[in-house]
Amino acid sequence: MAPQLDSYFKQVDDLSDHFIERLRKAVAIPSISAEDERRPEVVRMGQFLADELKALGAEVEQRPLGIQPGKTDLELPPVVIARYGNDKKKRTILVYGHYDVQPAGKEDGWATEPFELTVDDKGRMYGRGSTDDKGPVLGWLNAIEAHQKAGVEFPVNLLMCFEGMEEYGSEGLDDFINVEAKKYFADADAVCISDNYWLGTEKPCLTYGLRGCSYYSVEISGPGQDLHSGVFGGTAQEPMTDLVRVLGTLVDTNGKIQIPGLAELVAPLTEEEKSLYGDIAFTMDNLYESLGSKTSIHPDKEKTLMARWRYPSLSVHGIEGAFSQPGAKTVIPAKVIGKFSIRTVPNMEPADVDRLVFKYVNDEFKKLGSKNKMSCTLQHAGKWWVASPKHWNFSAAGKAVERVWGVKPDLTREGGSIPVTLTFEQAIGKNVLLLPMGSSTDAAHSINEKLDKRNYIEGIKLLGAYLHYAAEEEMV
Amino acid sequence: MAPQLDSYFKQVDDLSDHFIERLRKAVAIPSISAEDERRPEVVRMGQFLADELKALGAEVEQRPLGIQPGKTDLELPPVVIARYGNDKKKRTILVYGHYDVQPAGKEDGWATEPFELTVDDKGRMYGRGSTDDKGPVLGWLNAIEAHQKAGVEFPVNLLMCFEGMEEYGSEGLDDFINVEAKKYFADADAVCISDNYWLGTEKPCLTYGLRGCSYYSVEISGPGQDLHSGVFGGTAQEPMTDLVRVLGTLVDTNGKIQIPGLAELVAPLTEEEKSLYGDIAFTMDNLYESLGSKTSIHPDKEKTLMARWRYPSLSVHGIEGAFSQPGAKTVIPAKVIGKFSIRTVPNMEPADVDRLVFKYVNDEFKKLGSKNKMSCTLQHAGKWWVASPKHWNFSAAGKAVERVWGVKPDLTREGGSIPVTLTFEQAIGKNVLLLPMGSSTDAAHSINEKLDKRNYIEGIKLLGAYLHYAAEEEMV
Repeated sequence: MAPQLDSYFKQVDDLSDHFIERLRKAVAIPSISAEDERRPEVVRMGQFLADELKALGAEVEQRPLGIQPGKTDLELPPVVIARYGNDKKKRTILVYGHYDVQPAGKEDGWATEPFELTVDDKGRMYGRGSTDDKGPVLGWLNAIEAHQKAGVEFPVNLLMCFEGMEEYGSEGLDDFINVEAKKYFADADAVCISDNYWLGTEKPCLTYGLRGCSYYSVEISGPGQDLHSGVFGGTAQEPMTDLVRVLGTLVDTNGKIQIPGLAELVAPLTEEEKSLYGDIAFTMDNLYESLGSKTSIHPDKEKTLMARWRYPSLSVHGIEGAFSQPGAKTVIPAKVIGKFSIRTVPNMEPADVDRLVFKYVNDEFKKLGSKNKMSCTLQHAGKWWVASPKHWNFSAAGKAVERVWGVKPDLTREGGSIPVTLTFEQAIGKNVLLLPMGSSTDAAHSINEKLDKRNYIEGIKLLGAYLHYAAEEEMV
Repeated sequence: MAPQLDSYFKQVDDLSDHFIERLRKAVAIPSISAEDERRPEVVRMGQFLADELKALGAEVEQRPLGIQPGKTDLELPPVVIARYGNDKKKRTILVYGHYDVQPAGKEDGWATEPFELTVDDKGRMYGRGSTDDKGPVLGWLNAIEAHQKAGVEFPVNLLMCFEGMEEYGSEGLDDFINVEAKKYFADADAVCISDNYWLGTEKPCLTYGLRGCSYYSVEISGPGQDLHSGVFGGTAQEPMTDLVRVLGTLVDTNGKIQIPGLAELVAPLTEEEKSLYGDIAFTMDNLYESLGSKTSIHPDKEKTLMARWRYPSLSVHGIEGAFSQPGAKTVIPAKVIGKFSIRTVPNMEPADVDRLVFKYVNDEFKKLGSKNKMSCTLQHAGKWWVASPKHWNFSAAGKAVERVWGVKPDLTREGGSIPVTLTFEQAIGKNVLLLPMGSSTDAAHSINEKLDKRNYIEGIKLLGAYLHYAAEEEMV
């Protein structure tokens, strides 16, 4: 029997101004995890969440994670964990979100004050953290409150895990999750993360796959110190000359990776999978809009989505140690470090990728006949993730989307990685669902980040509805 | 008749402690022209020089150069100009030096405090500006004082031009020289600049040529803003991919410039010129020592010196707009600007070099088939300079070197540019001589800059002796 949700939905609508006020308060706290001097604000944001949760009747703990690695006395912000409901007859859903935000300042080009929620006449709510990830995190709290005020029984036990270092590599979180998997999180039946975005602006989606990322450095050095190009130009082999030549062999303008053997690691495209892409609500105009240009590689949406989701890509990010400022400096850098990464997909094993990359870069460097020293190393690797979208966790979310938005969601994957997803799956051993609230134009990590009021309010309904369907959905 | 110099030389020796004290006072003033907040120190250093010159009986003026270009209210430090002697029967020699220094801080890795002159047991006097260029500038003042105390008549009228912005592009100086060429500097018969270095550590040299420098930017842009490689990797053409491919086509590991037509602009090597290189006091070990490695291009000294002095070279300096910090950032930069420069030699006309560079870079970019936008522009060009080493100005200096050091100096060129050299030659219309005081190991612009006590004291003798020979040398 379909859950009775009308009175819950009406209550969400009635409380919408109150929920926007809650988001306004959260956005006003500049909880920037990457800036040491803002750490007290991150801690304050964690406290705000804990206080709100306590007021709603949840059991809350703020768990310390110790000193931040590489710092002498900077405490990591606590993980806020909470439980709402402890009824053995109900399913238990573990949700994750983060309460820290990316850096932001008016001087970066924001049209509004980044830490003042500013709602325009189209209902776009601008502010740092509005969509990433304070809106979705508060979505869970708002869902609890609307149930209470509507007098609707909460359908599941809700476990919550909200961290404050997501935008700085989730320092300390993996260890915490691995320990708590068998303790605080022990009775979780499924996991739901709301920290990604719709593919476009109109159609909701459920996300069941993420690419991995293997990040490499190529360090080339020769002279004992930086040299002046007037004095040494023409007489010394220059590391930068070698580096741009090596980096130039990795990938071509149309994204074709030049490393032999890499393409053979990729899972072949089946006819069944191929047929899925045509129905996805995505157009080349969506791509052009988000790119801010028409400098795309592929001519159609199917190839574009496959390139983003199910094929690897290689990007050259930059060079450390060379002259990178505006102006003109005639330096011959003594040591330069090129950075590139490969987005990985099933069935690329990170160790195989490393082996092929190291061999290729070494071979290409040898071809130069240089006396400089070169070493290629892995900086970090995060593995790709693919879940089963046929699990009850996904079908529950699919029904909730149909109920709230009136359409079947697209089943999508993402080109980027959300490492905590794989951590939860491996530690908890249960299905993980990515259930986004915001849309593709929300500009997370950019200036003028926003969350549409419609996505926020309907998103609160969606999160609540998902919990009702998750409570009832039959296992398959 | 050879000048009578013995009593002058003895006086220099007797005053050596006093002259080192003068250098100590000058080094103690951190006159860093590149750091706005140090501007008062630069001005203080100009005042110190002016006071010392006045005390020696010179006429001194401090000429303002106005507001620094690009700043709203930062005054350029004054040019200190001075005249010592105004005897129409004597020749007039114009000397140039600079009283500003490169940035320096203990935290950069200095073994001693950079603004405290520290003399070790081998007579190496460490300190920022010791060799570049406070030692040589004070050399002229010390020469005046030693003449006075020895009771030896000063052989020439000495015009001095000491600037305070050399390490920051000599802002405002060209216009000043062009105006004063027919006024304050009108009676100069020759110019001498002591602001470069011996080729090695044992044999003095006179320098008669400098390479020019044409500095280029290659800007490639596509997306409207920086992109996340997870989301867009594989679907967008990446400016950085294009840029490393273009930069990789410019020059090979052994310094061979790949731009067609460029080599044809270079003046052919004559047998006479070729024969000069064998005698120069320079060894491959000198090169390895200054390089701090054996990553050289050429196997012998002749080819090395020719590559440094009389052939062009191309260096890639870095990339602006890409990720250049330590760590790992998965950005696809939206706009990247590659920087490279070509050291130019006779007879390369800068306009011809530009034309060939622009055509080549455009052609190479077109080959990529990219939709990104590329533009290649000249940032600045400074022309090469070659003087006649047969001029009396050089033969006078050659005799002075023989007298002080007991050897004939090497006649050298330099790979780098000293733009003011060409400015003086063109504005004054007289022969310009580069007469270095310091040696190749002095580490100007690096940490642990030093001037050997021997080079300083014998250098003071040399500057004075040069003026005596310049007073008597017959015109050829």
